Amino acid sequence: MGRQGLGALPREEAGELLVDAAVEVLAREGARGLTFRAVDAGAGVPVGTVSNYFTGRDDLLRQIDARLHQRLAPDLEVLGELMRAPKDRGLVTALMHDLMARVTGDRTGCLALLEMRLEATRRPELRASCTESVRADLEQGMEFHLSAGLPGWDETVAVLYLAMLGLVLEHRTLPDVLDGVLPGVGVPQGLVERIVTAVVPER
Amino acid sequence: MGRQGLGALPREEAGELLVDAAVEVLAREGARGLTFRAVDAGAGVPVGTVSNYFTGRDDLLRQIDARLHQRLAPDLEVLGELMRAPKDRGLVTALMHDLMARVTGDRTGCLALLEMRLEATRRPELRASCTESVRADLEQGMEFHLSAGLPGWDETVAVLYLAMLGLVLEHRTLPDVLDGVLPGVGVPQGLVERIVTAVVPER
Repeated sequence: MGRQGLGALPREEAGELLVDAAVEVLAREGARGLTFRAVDAGAGVPVGTVSNYFTGRDDLLRQIDARLHQRLAPDLEVLGELMRAPKDRGLVTALMHDLMARVTGDRTGCLALLEMRLEATRRPELRASCTESVRADLEQGMEFHLSAGLPGWDETVAVLYLAMLGLVLEHRTLPDVLDGVLPGVGVPQGLVERIVTAVVPER
Repeated sequence: MGRQGLGALPREEAGELLVDAAVEVLAREGARGLTFRAVDAGAGVPVGTVSNYFTGRDDLLRQIDARLHQRLAPDLEVLGELMRAPKDRGLVTALMHDLMARVTGDRTGCLALLEMRLEATRRPELRASCTESVRADLEQGMEFHLSAGLPGWDETVAVLYLAMLGLVLEHRTLPDVLDGVLPGVGVPQGLVERIVTAVVPER
């Protein structure tokens, strides 16, 4: 933080800054490194500040989940522009390119999300809230796909989702595994095309 | 450890016990919780024992990687039995069922592997060795698929690999996301069938 400190900001904005600092800590140090004190230090605020904004670690984790959801969400204007194209496989590819660019563009957010998943295996409350938000996204994706008249069925969306999830995990943690494994296919965007071609029916 | 302690075992066997204890610590506590002292405690051996077996944390991580690779590897006898079937999509499904059963059956090993991936984003040396082992597996999978005459091409194997990776991540960290999302499709094995049907050509 600059010299003015958090106190000069509206409470909501200050809270958001602290959550973003927590995302950084999570990505850099892992879930076990995520302490109030580490977030104080990461945000450059006096020790004890974070504890004034969150009721506890569970509250902080819940707010990180909500914030990541927001950071990685599609830009509705971009989406609206894309949806003017014919409802074919090429459009699905464009949508997946957009998704991949968003997710891999926010390296810290993406790593933090993976850390959240692992932390969820240890904290039932976090597991419940992450499950709810990821499930809602997946169901929304299915509904969007079908109601927009894109080619395929619920199964198509589910398999596409899993392949994209695998690609995000691989590309963000061990990117060189995929590099050049299919000659002439760029990573990640060339692989996105191969995934869509394999999974989504032509019509 | 029992009363006799590690000293009663051949050095190699004792080392393997300690690596398995380290895998448990990694899955339970996350990468940052993986200290020699935590492994001493997890293995129930005197403080300082682990430092007699590994030159440092990098050495321990490398040996965990090798051990997980071994724990999750296919049973060659099972594989040989499976490969007597016709080389069609049904066989690919059977092979993926076997893979999924191995990986999700070893919950701790699977979570430890995911922790290793995240730790690899922080440690270039670990990233290099994990990349090498995962890449070798993927290339071997491609070669196996083609030389066995299974349906599809390198791209098929790459997309199949990514979808299975996504399924493993989802099922091991947020299993309820997928539960019932496709009515009548069991998780994970029913989803394995849907993945293969979507990705692998019939002939």
